[in-house]
Amino acid sequence: MYNFVFHMPAKVLFGPGKLQTLHEETLPGKKALIVTTNGTSVKKYGYLASLEKELDLAGVGHELFDQIRPNPTSDNVMDGAALGKKTGCDFVVALGGGSVMDCGKCIALMMTNPGTIWDYSLSVNGGKKAAPVAAVPIVAITTSAGTGSEVDMASVITNEATKEKTGIFFPSMMPTLSIVDANLMKSVPPKFTAYQGMDAFFHAAESVINKNEHPMGEMFALKAIELIAQNLPTAYKNGSNMEARANVALANTLAGFYMLCTSEHTMEHVMGGYHDDLVHGAGLIMISHAYFNFFAKRKAAEEPMKKMARAMGVKDPQSGEDFIQALDALIASVGCADLRMSDAGITKEELKGYPKRVHEVLGGDITADPLPLSDADYLEIFEESYK
Amino acid sequence: MYNFVFHMPAKVLFGPGKLQTLHEETLPGKKALIVTTNGTSVKKYGYLASLEKELDLAGVGHELFDQIRPNPTSDNVMDGAALGKKTGCDFVVALGGGSVMDCGKCIALMMTNPGTIWDYSLSVNGGKKAAPVAAVPIVAITTSAGTGSEVDMASVITNEATKEKTGIFFPSMMPTLSIVDANLMKSVPPKFTAYQGMDAFFHAAESVINKNEHPMGEMFALKAIELIAQNLPTAYKNGSNMEARANVALANTLAGFYMLCTSEHTMEHVMGGYHDDLVHGAGLIMISHAYFNFFAKRKAAEEPMKKMARAMGVKDPQSGEDFIQALDALIASVGCADLRMSDAGITKEELKGYPKRVHEVLGGDITADPLPLSDADYLEIFEESYK
Repeated sequence: MYNFVFHMPAKVLFGPGKLQTLHEETLPGKKALIVTTNGTSVKKYGYLASLEKELDLAGVGHELFDQIRPNPTSDNVMDGAALGKKTGCDFVVALGGGSVMDCGKCIALMMTNPGTIWDYSLSVNGGKKAAPVAAVPIVAITTSAGTGSEVDMASVITNEATKEKTGIFFPSMMPTLSIVDANLMKSVPPKFTAYQGMDAFFHAAESVINKNEHPMGEMFALKAIELIAQNLPTAYKNGSNMEARANVALANTLAGFYMLCTSEHTMEHVMGGYHDDLVHGAGLIMISHAYFNFFAKRKAAEEPMKKMARAMGVKDPQSGEDFIQALDALIASVGCADLRMSDAGITKEELKGYPKRVHEVLGGDITADPLPLSDADYLEIFEESYK
Repeated sequence: MYNFVFHMPAKVLFGPGKLQTLHEETLPGKKALIVTTNGTSVKKYGYLASLEKELDLAGVGHELFDQIRPNPTSDNVMDGAALGKKTGCDFVVALGGGSVMDCGKCIALMMTNPGTIWDYSLSVNGGKKAAPVAAVPIVAITTSAGTGSEVDMASVITNEATKEKTGIFFPSMMPTLSIVDANLMKSVPPKFTAYQGMDAFFHAAESVINKNEHPMGEMFALKAIELIAQNLPTAYKNGSNMEARANVALANTLAGFYMLCTSEHTMEHVMGGYHDDLVHGAGLIMISHAYFNFFAKRKAAEEPMKKMARAMGVKDPQSGEDFIQALDALIASVGCADLRMSDAGITKEELKGYPKRVHEVLGGDITADPLPLSDADYLEIFEESYK
């Protein structure tokens, strides 16, 4: 019988326009370190100016750290924490996508803790220490719909010196307040709308087939799948359709509430580890048909797949095969049917080394697939996905 | 477009046997005031002894206040708070059903605040004050599946002196930790299993038809409806079927996450206000057919009702009428088809005075029904329900 915990201390404000209500909230400090990307979009589209206005209206001071790069680094973290400490900030407001929110969480941790962020990494060269002090409070304002980082305590950081990418997570890194305002996602280009939305889709789909799934996790995941199937194609084709954007944003956050990822996520991290430029969502799409079909062919997840097919609008699904067809159709409808590993620089030859790495990198729970996967199975899935 | 907030700071442990994991949690204080019923069940079935053992294992002291009666009173609150203060308790553990959890929350409030609990009531004779100090932390361990009190900040207290029943709620009255362990519900008799389960059902059903409903609230409510339709008849017929009990318990808590009640709840509070012995869930059942059918006949909530019918297992619902039939069948399957207002002492004559009271008592949001209800409409629903 099921047995699980629900704990989501973050207060989440949902809806287009919610950024403009931030000043009405009780903010968790007197001076905010605004952490944002080194790109131009948050400035060009006025998101940063809106945030600064809200903090002014709330009577809260702020300092800007706009140096976060995609795949944020330890240096990003330490530079941000140093600025926050020097300028007397007592909380962090992260405005951006997954990279920014992840880095913001680590900055919040390093504003109160000694040493460097790598002391708290579980990677081979990481210090593996427990952080002695809680992070300063974090407000997360997401500008993408794909990571769920606004409702979790985890972050992924790259160490350029050791060439490692690692997850760092402590309970105090959970945001206290998050804003999911689709107005801030209007400017995401179609391609990334698709990649991010499908990343959220796979967070949900892996949860549904996960052998540790429970009714509450399934509830969130199936709702996310339904919302993405109904709305991602529209958000992809017409990025200014705010209803579609809002529904995809909601789906992403719901999928983040319980993220029970399986081998699919780990397999993609192997690909991404060798190919820096491969976008995570794109990598997932490339292997998804072969990964899910592995179980459909073996009838290993028939009920979960029928539930997912139903959530995707299939009237009376008869088998896992119906889910595979719906998945293929969804991927095609967001312009991703022709993504190729070869275009990302992956060679067929290198796939042979991938199964071993599946056991070494962090990602999903590789013991939670509907059937246990052997190295030969991993290779089969990678090779079937290759084009 | 939707616009809503999700904020559920309570950590909730779900599953049969979860009480036995309490000692592994970080408890919010050093000495607990255990608040429980003046009835015998928590002692007879060993729930209290289990709780005391957990607190001992956690190295936390405890004091017992076992004086909570059904429909708890201001005196219950003040006596409990006095004991908690006198014995140096710094948090409350409420072990019981809705009455106990509600009273526990108010005791926690009065352990830190001046005056009497009625100073903080919004009723006619209440002081309507804001509580200057946060309540001590609250751990809620529910022994029933019907109020959702383990995941909200609200309580209902009776003032015997002024003959008032009022809601009292402050954010600090939200439990920090809640346990939903169906093993503690095994002893609930069939009749109350049905009443409590149907109360939870109506929390959900009123949310789905509520004109302020949003996709996340609907997700929780439809899942609750599905779980109750599938499991309440079994839990009613065989109270030791733990899977059915656990699913009904989960449904109740999910329905509590967003409780957007409508006039149906207010109408029942009017009935209960005149008839102390009328069990809330039974009162709701008595008026539910006429209430929901009012909207079904007028096709005022067709889509929400079709969604609910689908969640209840109707294959391809065509109209709101399908929901009404499924509701009638569910009520019959839990032995409640023959509940009569007259058996509860209600006379047909007194119904004429009810519509006016609908505007005076607290309950659901009477402006949120699918169609606005006039006093003539309220009377029609009450009279149609009469037998």
